[in-house]
Amino acid sequence: MREAAPSDRTKVHRHPERARYDRPSIDAILDDAYVCHLGFRVEGQPFGIPTMFARDGDRVIVHGSAASRMTKTLATGVPVSVAVTLLDGLVLARSATHHSMNYRSVVVVGHAQPIEDRVDKVAAMRALVERIAPGRWERVREPSDAELRSTTILAVPLDEASAKVRTGPPVDDEEDLSRDVWAGVLPLAPTAMGEPIPDPGLPAGTHLGSDVRGVLERLRPKP
Amino acid sequence: MREAAPSDRTKVHRHPERARYDRPSIDAILDDAYVCHLGFRVEGQPFGIPTMFARDGDRVIVHGSAASRMTKTLATGVPVSVAVTLLDGLVLARSATHHSMNYRSVVVVGHAQPIEDRVDKVAAMRALVERIAPGRWERVREPSDAELRSTTILAVPLDEASAKVRTGPPVDDEEDLSRDVWAGVLPLAPTAMGEPIPDPGLPAGTHLGSDVRGVLERLRPKP
Repeated sequence: MREAAPSDRTKVHRHPERARYDRPSIDAILDDAYVCHLGFRVEGQPFGIPTMFARDGDRVIVHGSAASRMTKTLATGVPVSVAVTLLDGLVLARSATHHSMNYRSVVVVGHAQPIEDRVDKVAAMRALVERIAPGRWERVREPSDAELRSTTILAVPLDEASAKVRTGPPVDDEEDLSRDVWAGVLPLAPTAMGEPIPDPGLPAGTHLGSDVRGVLERLRPKP
Repeated sequence: MREAAPSDRTKVHRHPERARYDRPSIDAILDDAYVCHLGFRVEGQPFGIPTMFARDGDRVIVHGSAASRMTKTLATGVPVSVAVTLLDGLVLARSATHHSMNYRSVVVVGHAQPIEDRVDKVAAMRALVERIAPGRWERVREPSDAELRSTTILAVPLDEASAKVRTGPPVDDEEDLSRDVWAGVLPLAPTAMGEPIPDPGLPAGTHLGSDVRGVLERLRPKP
């Protein structure tokens, strides 16, 4: 059975057949993305600001300088949206109108909660670092007290979230099917390109750890 | 000389050295992306909705069903933001806090104008199709009157836009440089994966046109 939208404002109205409201579908999309867009309003103007994020259980974690407009605005508890989109392919149709994209997207709405507790704050930082490279947290220096003070970490609960997914070929009109033009899907994916670029200050011979190799394995183009 | 922000609300405050306000920088980022996030408010709640777009001269073009909440809301002239983000790399530092991403992003703020004039509307549709595959417009069926009526096309002028770009290695603290861990950048790019998937209804032997081959050439991983 298809799950229902958690709220009216997360309900997908256009192409409802593309909607997913179950947490495994939502989590899988969030866990495959590196960047979200935070939507919030400043002096009547909506902004969409890109930032790295991580899903940590039932919440989305973002962070930023405690001095930034974004974190200061969001920490006041104003309504926020978190939008995540993965582009999977270009959909080439036989008619101009039916060109499209294959994608997986999630929109979360709600409020951001600043994480104040030290233990929880370190756990949230851990989630952000582990999102980039699983296994990396054990290898790098943990945040200092000063760093924790100057960093605001915010959690947005996944209570009100919906996903939308388009897959498959173009949907052309019957009368266009005989048109002599290629139609179909060009699959896209974010991939690790070429070799990792070592930091200029890295001692010669420093090996990629299993954390970095794990990322490359996942993101390198498959032959 | 570095250009000034076009307005206070497009000014980049955090890491101002990453800001770009000149149109060539902004245009290059927009022209390299397929998806934007539209930020707008519905009943007090900000939303960030992903959608395909194209830059057409001094404006960003988006479209949607004339019946959708998004196009109906935006056509009333409410404040909107257009956010575009390209992820270029994962930045692995020696300390948790300095992990980052290399990216190029643009945020446009303003109002969306519905394009009503038929000639301009077709030109905007052309920009959307040509963005997906240059040269494709001449090969596909043009929009019918009925399709144009049921599609709302919106233009957001580039008058108030700013870009933010991070490049280069991690910025670690002096005292962490001797830490025995790999640090550097893992470059990422969206690439065309594997073979194009022909539409199931395509007659056998339909060749990829030069339009499709052009896209693949640009997006295939370089050896």
